[in-house]
Amino acid sequence: MVPETLRWENGKLFLVDQGKLPFAVEYVMCATADDVVSAIKNMTVRGAPAIGVAAAYALVLAAAHSTDFNKAASALADSRPTAVNLMWSVRRMTLLYNSLADGNADEIYYSMEKEAIKIHREDIEINRKIGYYGASLLPHNAAVITHCNAGALATAGYGTALGVLRAAAEAGKNIKIYADETRPRLQGGQLTSYELCEDGFDVTVITDSMASFIMANNKIDAVITGADRVAANGDTANKIGTYGLAVAAKYHGVPFYVAAPLSTFDTEYETGRKIPIEERDGDEIRVVGGRRIIPEKIKVWNPSFDVTPHGLISGIITECGIIREPYEKNICELFK
Amino acid sequence: MVPETLRWENGKLFLVDQGKLPFAVEYVMCATADDVVSAIKNMTVRGAPAIGVAAAYALVLAAAHSTDFNKAASALADSRPTAVNLMWSVRRMTLLYNSLADGNADEIYYSMEKEAIKIHREDIEINRKIGYYGASLLPHNAAVITHCNAGALATAGYGTALGVLRAAAEAGKNIKIYADETRPRLQGGQLTSYELCEDGFDVTVITDSMASFIMANNKIDAVITGADRVAANGDTANKIGTYGLAVAAKYHGVPFYVAAPLSTFDTEYETGRKIPIEERDGDEIRVVGGRRIIPEKIKVWNPSFDVTPHGLISGIITECGIIREPYEKNICELFK
Repeated sequence: MVPETLRWENGKLFLVDQGKLPFAVEYVMCATADDVVSAIKNMTVRGAPAIGVAAAYALVLAAAHSTDFNKAASALADSRPTAVNLMWSVRRMTLLYNSLADGNADEIYYSMEKEAIKIHREDIEINRKIGYYGASLLPHNAAVITHCNAGALATAGYGTALGVLRAAAEAGKNIKIYADETRPRLQGGQLTSYELCEDGFDVTVITDSMASFIMANNKIDAVITGADRVAANGDTANKIGTYGLAVAAKYHGVPFYVAAPLSTFDTEYETGRKIPIEERDGDEIRVVGGRRIIPEKIKVWNPSFDVTPHGLISGIITECGIIREPYEKNICELFK
Repeated sequence: MVPETLRWENGKLFLVDQGKLPFAVEYVMCATADDVVSAIKNMTVRGAPAIGVAAAYALVLAAAHSTDFNKAASALADSRPTAVNLMWSVRRMTLLYNSLADGNADEIYYSMEKEAIKIHREDIEINRKIGYYGASLLPHNAAVITHCNAGALATAGYGTALGVLRAAAEAGKNIKIYADETRPRLQGGQLTSYELCEDGFDVTVITDSMASFIMANNKIDAVITGADRVAANGDTANKIGTYGLAVAAKYHGVPFYVAAPLSTFDTEYETGRKIPIEERDGDEIRVVGGRRIIPEKIKVWNPSFDVTPHGLISGIITECGIIREPYEKNICELFK
């Protein structure tokens, strides 16, 4: 069974430590908003939707402990720059908090907690809807490539891209999955393979560099990934390597799908060109599993995300259905 | 200074242990042909040209120790299936051995040793010629992506793909290099970065999945890789990930060059379709730097090589000049 990504218990947030999976299932307790900021920064919790839910609970903690709420909200919003669900969640909780200004402490806490739990539950429901729409895209015996982890562990549960696979399997379809290991942080090798194995899928881990070779030699029905931010024209920021995979899919005529809730869309960005791309510490590349594999003096470049232009995307699977070309028009109508 | 890949000393072969670089420079002594077979299998020595030279010395050792020569020759030929320089070298040494059948032991040893030393020296000279031709392809301020290690450490010295960069630098050109780390064995992260740093190049290691993103956002003048086997039509087997890189280069309009000596060509293969692709142990993916990163029960797929169709290759840089389309005709003429 796949462990719960987040658990809210007795006024504290428990996050499954994604740095320890798949070798150990351990929970990190967050008692303050600062604890959650650290957990986001060090990737104890990762995955755009999961970060969004964690941030909602963080603001319950901020409200409870008479912390400077606005300071906590902005520390959260700054904790990772690319995934926009985080900002969406902070905005939603802040709006509620401001509307409660006249309430007493208990009322504020109760309403904030209720809202965070709602965001948490909604995320799972949304993923089931994404799964429902996405499953229709896969044939009975489907072979699918996925990148990073857009699964139960990247969300409140069920997953976005992996939710599509789960829904297809629930509909009786037979699915074979190739999981890119996803360097540098190995979310594919360590998280996607783990949760799909736990759920009884036929999953094979490959290095990121093998995906093209597989597309050239095997029948691949689809590539499906998650997203960290979708611009108004459909350009999509996602884990580094997604763009290369989309280029390879285009070259081989394989449909390339993005699965993402509407909270991942950021229509303030007309295109993906200016989406901020987080660059993380070079030691994420130089050190693997605690072991230094590349000397410190060697220069590395470590962008965490890349941007896939909408022209490479066959469809964006959301809880409201599948968005296709022309993206700008169709996304605009959805958000009107 | 880059350590010598191979050294023949007092009738023994010393191989720099490529599994220990860049953290330690240690040599493994091979006193028998079997020692060399093991060193090839476990990748103490790697790189198609370096393996070819090591195999030549191995057959000197076989001749010296009145081993069953043919058995040694076939164990060598079988030690790695994809790189064809190995078979080329074994064939050349075997032909000589058979021609010496009437000689006494000393004469045989002396001639075999002389031939192996000749193969060793020729490899360096060939690389310098490849460098000379290849350097003309790069502009003054060039940014180049390379994959795996096709450098001094993959050859007797100087390198094929990296020889091109060395020759360009010697011609006064300023070269910036992005080295794919090259999972699973990290030859780019550990060997290419090391030897280029030692020689004062500006080199940045990236994960394999970043190459496409770099091509989309930076001015990249060329991708240059080595080769393990080139078919009669120019299709090229090389380290896994080369094909994906060639697809990305094509998509971004970046020239994609292969640098390889003529001993890498195998005109018995009309196309690359049937070139044998070595599959290695899955733990090469699951274990990094001695640390298990993916549980043993998770299925992985680990082909060591892939094949890039000639249509994606802008030119093959050899010691006799640059071969271009139409490859079949031009390669045929070269080997006539």
